[in-house]
Amino acid sequence: MTSMYDPTPADQFTFGLWTVGQTGRDPFGEATRPGFSPVQIVQELAKLGAYGVNLHDNDLVPINASAQERDRIVSEFRQALSDHGLAVPMATTNLFSDPAFKDGAFTSADARVRAYALQKTMLSMDLGAELGAHTYVFWGGREGTEVDASSKLLDSLAWFRDSLNFLADYSASQGYSYRFALEPKPNEPRGDIFFPTAGSMLGFIATLEHSERFGVNPEFAHDTMAGLNFTHAVAQVIDAGKLFHIDLNDQKMGRFDQDLRFGAENYKTAFFLVKLLEDSGYTGPKHFDAHALRTEDAAGVWAFARGCMRTYLILKEKARQFNEDSEIQAALAAYRIEDAALSELTHSFSAEKAQVLKAQTFDRAALGARGLGLEHLDQLTAELLLGVR
Amino acid sequence: MTSMYDPTPADQFTFGLWTVGQTGRDPFGEATRPGFSPVQIVQELAKLGAYGVNLHDNDLVPINASAQERDRIVSEFRQALSDHGLAVPMATTNLFSDPAFKDGAFTSADARVRAYALQKTMLSMDLGAELGAHTYVFWGGREGTEVDASSKLLDSLAWFRDSLNFLADYSASQGYSYRFALEPKPNEPRGDIFFPTAGSMLGFIATLEHSERFGVNPEFAHDTMAGLNFTHAVAQVIDAGKLFHIDLNDQKMGRFDQDLRFGAENYKTAFFLVKLLEDSGYTGPKHFDAHALRTEDAAGVWAFARGCMRTYLILKEKARQFNEDSEIQAALAAYRIEDAALSELTHSFSAEKAQVLKAQTFDRAALGARGLGLEHLDQLTAELLLGVR
Amino acid sequence: MTSMYDPTPADQFTFGLWTVGQTGRDPFGEATRPGFSPVQIVQELAKLGAYGVNLHDNDLVPINASAQERDRIVSEFRQALSDHGLAVPMATTNLFSDPAFKDGAFTSADARVRAYALQKTMLSMDLGAELGAHTYVFWGGREGTEVDASSKLLDSLAWFRDSLNFLADYSASQGYSYRFALEPKPNEPRGDIFFPTAGSMLGFIATLEHSERFGVNPEFAHDTMAGLNFTHAVAQVIDAGKLFHIDLNDQKMGRFDQDLRFGAENYKTAFFLVKLLEDSGYTGPKHFDAHALRTEDAAGVWAFARGCMRTYLILKEKARQFNEDSEIQAALAAYRIEDAALSELTHSFSAEKAQVLKAQTFDRAALGARGLGLEHLDQLTAELLLGVR
Amino acid sequence: MTSMYDPTPADQFTFGLWTVGQTGRDPFGEATRPGFSPVQIVQELAKLGAYGVNLHDNDLVPINASAQERDRIVSEFRQALSDHGLAVPMATTNLFSDPAFKDGAFTSADARVRAYALQKTMLSMDLGAELGAHTYVFWGGREGTEVDASSKLLDSLAWFRDSLNFLADYSASQGYSYRFALEPKPNEPRGDIFFPTAGSMLGFIATLEHSERFGVNPEFAHDTMAGLNFTHAVAQVIDAGKLFHIDLNDQKMGRFDQDLRFGAENYKTAFFLVKLLEDSGYTGPKHFDAHALRTEDAAGVWAFARGCMRTYLILKEKARQFNEDSEIQAALAAYRIEDAALSELTHSFSAEKAQVLKAQTFDRAALGARGLGLEHLDQLTAELLLGVR
Repeated sequence: MTSMYDPTPADQFTFGLWTVGQTGRDPFGEATRPGFSPVQIVQELAKLGAYGVNLHDNDLVPINASAQERDRIVSEFRQALSDHGLAVPMATTNLFSDPAFKDGAFTSADARVRAYALQKTMLSMDLGAELGAHTYVFWGGREGTEVDASSKLLDSLAWFRDSLNFLADYSASQGYSYRFALEPKPNEPRGDIFFPTAGSMLGFIATLEHSERFGVNPEFAHDTMAGLNFTHAVAQVIDAGKLFHIDLNDQKMGRFDQDLRFGAENYKTAFFLVKLLEDSGYTGPKHFDAHALRTEDAAGVWAFARGCMRTYLILKEKARQFNEDSEIQAALAAYRIEDAALSELTHSFSAEKAQVLKAQTFDRAALGARGLGLEHLDQLTAELLLGVR
Repeated sequence: MTSMYDPTPADQFTFGLWTVGQTGRDPFGEATRPGFSPVQIVQELAKLGAYGVNLHDNDLVPINASAQERDRIVSEFRQALSDHGLAVPMATTNLFSDPAFKDGAFTSADARVRAYALQKTMLSMDLGAELGAHTYVFWGGREGTEVDASSKLLDSLAWFRDSLNFLADYSASQGYSYRFALEPKPNEPRGDIFFPTAGSMLGFIATLEHSERFGVNPEFAHDTMAGLNFTHAVAQVIDAGKLFHIDLNDQKMGRFDQDLRFGAENYKTAFFLVKLLEDSGYTGPKHFDAHALRTEDAAGVWAFARGCMRTYLILKEKARQFNEDSEIQAALAAYRIEDAALSELTHSFSAEKAQVLKAQTFDRAALGARGLGLEHLDQLTAELLLGVR
Repeated sequence: MTSMYDPTPADQFTFGLWTVGQTGRDPFGEATRPGFSPVQIVQELAKLGAYGVNLHDNDLVPINASAQERDRIVSEFRQALSDHGLAVPMATTNLFSDPAFKDGAFTSADARVRAYALQKTMLSMDLGAELGAHTYVFWGGREGTEVDASSKLLDSLAWFRDSLNFLADYSASQGYSYRFALEPKPNEPRGDIFFPTAGSMLGFIATLEHSERFGVNPEFAHDTMAGLNFTHAVAQVIDAGKLFHIDLNDQKMGRFDQDLRFGAENYKTAFFLVKLLEDSGYTGPKHFDAHALRTEDAAGVWAFARGCMRTYLILKEKARQFNEDSEIQAALAAYRIEDAALSELTHSFSAEKAQVLKAQTFDRAALGARGLGLEHLDQLTAELLLGVR
Repeated sequence: MTSMYDPTPADQFTFGLWTVGQTGRDPFGEATRPGFSPVQIVQELAKLGAYGVNLHDNDLVPINASAQERDRIVSEFRQALSDHGLAVPMATTNLFSDPAFKDGAFTSADARVRAYALQKTMLSMDLGAELGAHTYVFWGGREGTEVDASSKLLDSLAWFRDSLNFLADYSASQGYSYRFALEPKPNEPRGDIFFPTAGSMLGFIATLEHSERFGVNPEFAHDTMAGLNFTHAVAQVIDAGKLFHIDLNDQKMGRFDQDLRFGAENYKTAFFLVKLLEDSGYTGPKHFDAHALRTEDAAGVWAFARGCMRTYLILKEKARQFNEDSEIQAALAAYRIEDAALSELTHSFSAEKAQVLKAQTFDRAALGARGLGLEHLDQLTAELLLGVR
């Protein structure tokens, strides 16, 4: 309604060429709309107030383009970016569409496929750098299995690590500024994808050579597919200092990858995520990795894109209200019990502290009987979000 | 906040003795609050503006009570109902707590257990009738299996049917006014419960002798556990003329039975449900089959109960606004294409109509290219629900 | 290994043209194999020992074929069927691939789409009848929603019913022998599909005009997607006399539609299903609605088809062994407690029986204390299935 | 059947006091069997061939026992262990049953609860050490939320870390030999538990001070509740060198915590897990964190325990057969394509290798067209597991 929810580039909202460009093709049906050229997308996103546009190599340059075609396409695209003031903050590689990658790219049991994936990624990193991207995302959409009898599990993890180590070194050797953001997904298109959740990616990163250059690109829909609380997942990533990028969309739990408009499924979970991002001072791009419903035409695509951004800004304003609502803040204050002496005792170990703590008497019954007021707090939150406070 | 969302008995909100009386015990922990006596619950619910209170036989009368104890308890309870103006619109049987029912009640492979379940239910129907209940609910919490090697599947369905047929006749023979409402649940406490969804119950009802006396008591959390759209489930039940009762609460998909405060998880799905109930003219009780979080004390329990009712009323008001919002109504009008001639042709069969229809030419491409405006409509709905329209 | 698990037409195994013909295209990738012509499929399936082949109209006849092309294609196909001794027991309509059906076919909010769907289905029924099909399947893949704000829920159910009523009359008027089998699916490609489970379909059938001509085509993967026990679902369908057809495949719970080789995911659930089908005397076709993994070439497709049938036959033999295993049968006998007097009392109602039953004394504690031996029985089953008994 | 599947202590099978001692109480019903004393459990497990027994502090010593009672109980228990030759390889703390922990132990918003949890854990570590345990497990059953409005997310992660750092130092200061194994679970009893999957725990461990002393205790049922592939999860833990302990049981995806007998749900996934453990040389205890069905009496409990161990040994033997099956090994060999030159090129980065690799030509079409034979391999695996090869 009001202009207060209209985005500007300062909001750092980004879309992928593949998101607003999606044509509605799905496993059971053909495309329902023609899509847009990369240049058209740049024009329209700029009009809507977006900050940038992200891409896989083949979103822009067809996989079989000649070098001249590639250069012409890139040049036209850079011109459009410059004309419309849009950035390319993130780039990534398509390692999933081509049949060569049908059983994985970096984790294929075929050494030639692994080598080809490495080559394709280096070239794609060159492209991203040329377009000014500082974040490089890895989504291993085909890195997984349906048939564990294939017995490649432990080898696959090692191959994956080798590839990422290699590419981090490549980036450095080329003088690229990339930080790498690994994107987990539990399944689809593979039966089970390796490193299925944001937490798994954190675990994997700890095994990489230059782990400081690697972070996570958590996606709302992906952890949600596994029935996990996405806000919790992002909190763990933030706690580990690894929130390098984020993919926003929406999804019902326990089903196929829906990639719905941000906030389309559950306003409350979207709110807690926005609140976490804003309160924790995340300053990176907010990328909407979603697409319009298959029922939509071109106008519907732009309504979708506008809706993603508006909902984020509405929820950001709600987060501000939450932080200033005196009744809510009173409930939060009542919820927490601080105790300076005990906190000192438990904070960092010494043998003396341990002795004192072991000798302490606690009133278990009283601790258990205290009401925490969470139903009250949650209802206040509901009424704030529904706009009736 | 404002009194407009404070309930009155006219709203027909009900709670079970077992809901606000729940003590916080769960599979991994002990009770965290003492609970309330049935009489206390009646007092408090009346104060909050509820219409009625529902019960299992053993919520009121302990399973091992003598006849005199039973009569004294019932008499005190009736007095409390009368004093506080509360109704008992629904009654049901506890066929799940006692170890005798560990492998089912009506579907046990032990003929003695089946007979005992029938006896217990007749006595419980007597109790419900004495308290004025007109709806009798069957929730077959233990009717299911973990071990399908037990080979009782088809027999179990037949035993279940026999029991319901028997009890419908019993009700008639006693002159009771009961309508029976069958409540589905997919799993928990059994690995798989028979008739797991609202739709399954509709299918089962069609096989009963007096099927007109049987309807469904769909529960929000139960179909949601199976990842199904509860509003769709209720629509099917309404379409079949079988919405005899309804259990409201909330739940994340694909996990244990959470029985959260109505609206606690997803405002949007709760909204569409309320809208369906209100628009379709459902006039029965709205029963909150939920309980306060285990973190709460007595005050938290009543905050929980109040919250269930307030959220319903807030969403009911949103439904009214939705129906009067001109931009939303315009989007809905644009979405639908009527065609009187075609509707006539397709409505009810004749050989002539079929011939005409087969000869018709349709412009497939045009039908497929039309944008349906659903992203726009859904975003308008989001903004209405978030209170920013 | 041994020929005892090699299928013959007497086993009544069928495949769809779209199953072995699937090319490996998925939402994230292109086709990985060329597929086969309908005639090739007939040849190969006959070689493998299948009984028949099923089809959607457009699996055989392209949607934009001229009448002459249609007739030529059908004629060649019939010749191949005849040459190779294969039947077409089931036919169905593709109401999901074309963009015209993007928001539903029989449940579209556009009256023209509904009319076109009806026309397309009549023509497809003509085709099926010409090929000798006696079962007509309806899978409403696009009959559903993502945006419930569209407010078409109750209308959609009515439109769906109108269409089925119309088509049943059409079938009769043409003298076709069809029985109709409705196939449920919970979601994908739509966010939520109407009548999501086998049970829901039974409920819907009860509302149709000629309900006796309608049954269910349950699909293993579809109810499993909703985390439901498919064997239980099929038992309910059998109990209702509505098992008109069956789709066999496999799937992990709570995720995208995998359509895996029969038995690929869980041998135990596949076993209980086979046992139910065999023990209950189901005599219809066993249709494998699955496809080879995207990693496979032509040889892999036929290995997949052979595997589906072999696994069925292996499990059928296991079912025979289970029924003859004396230790298992002893465990089953111990599990059941019959009681002729009580069974008589509970079987069909009379006021006298009710009085006697109400006066009966049951030893609750003893009923609850009896051990049922299900861990023992289930372990025997495991060892039988694993081939170590 | 045959003694080849009868366990001996060399197999290192362990059970918890709480597993075979479970009484059948569940959220909807009372205990169905009396349970056993710790000493009885030791006797029976020894008879069955188990290696050890694990415990929470309060499985052995009631939470309100006096110091004398505690010492007497421990002394009797040690005597029983010694008499029957059973070890206590693992110990842990009950931080979930008492109401004091209703909103978390180490992550409670009440500083007193956090301090009490630390005290209780130190005392429990003392007990475990006294009993000879070398592995200390942390399962944070109450560390989570239902109400994210409580705004404690990032603080909770920090409190959790502080507690683990403190306890690692405590262990060292006492000269205990503990390695710590963190056990993830996605939900239940909390709506969402922190660090919900094995991967999340790996990520968390990387943030701990003495991360080398911390590993994971993955549980089959827990990752499976989130619909994840447990074998993949364990492979990641092994790859990271962090498999310190393992909990075996079974479970359907996307539902409440079932804790079924090992192998009860899915033989195939259990097989791949056993194969991974055996092939990768895991030498720690195999702990069955499961319990008998609520339908069982004492005999059923021991049948359950025997079944867990037998199924493991049957599958271990199948793994051996798999590794020696020439047809399977041929399929595996055909599946993998090695290429020494390419492997050298991709293994560890140099600028020269990158240049060579970028200049390489790959035959995408050929790579994509190769059939991988996975349907064939998977069917061979099925037939091996079903005992028909």
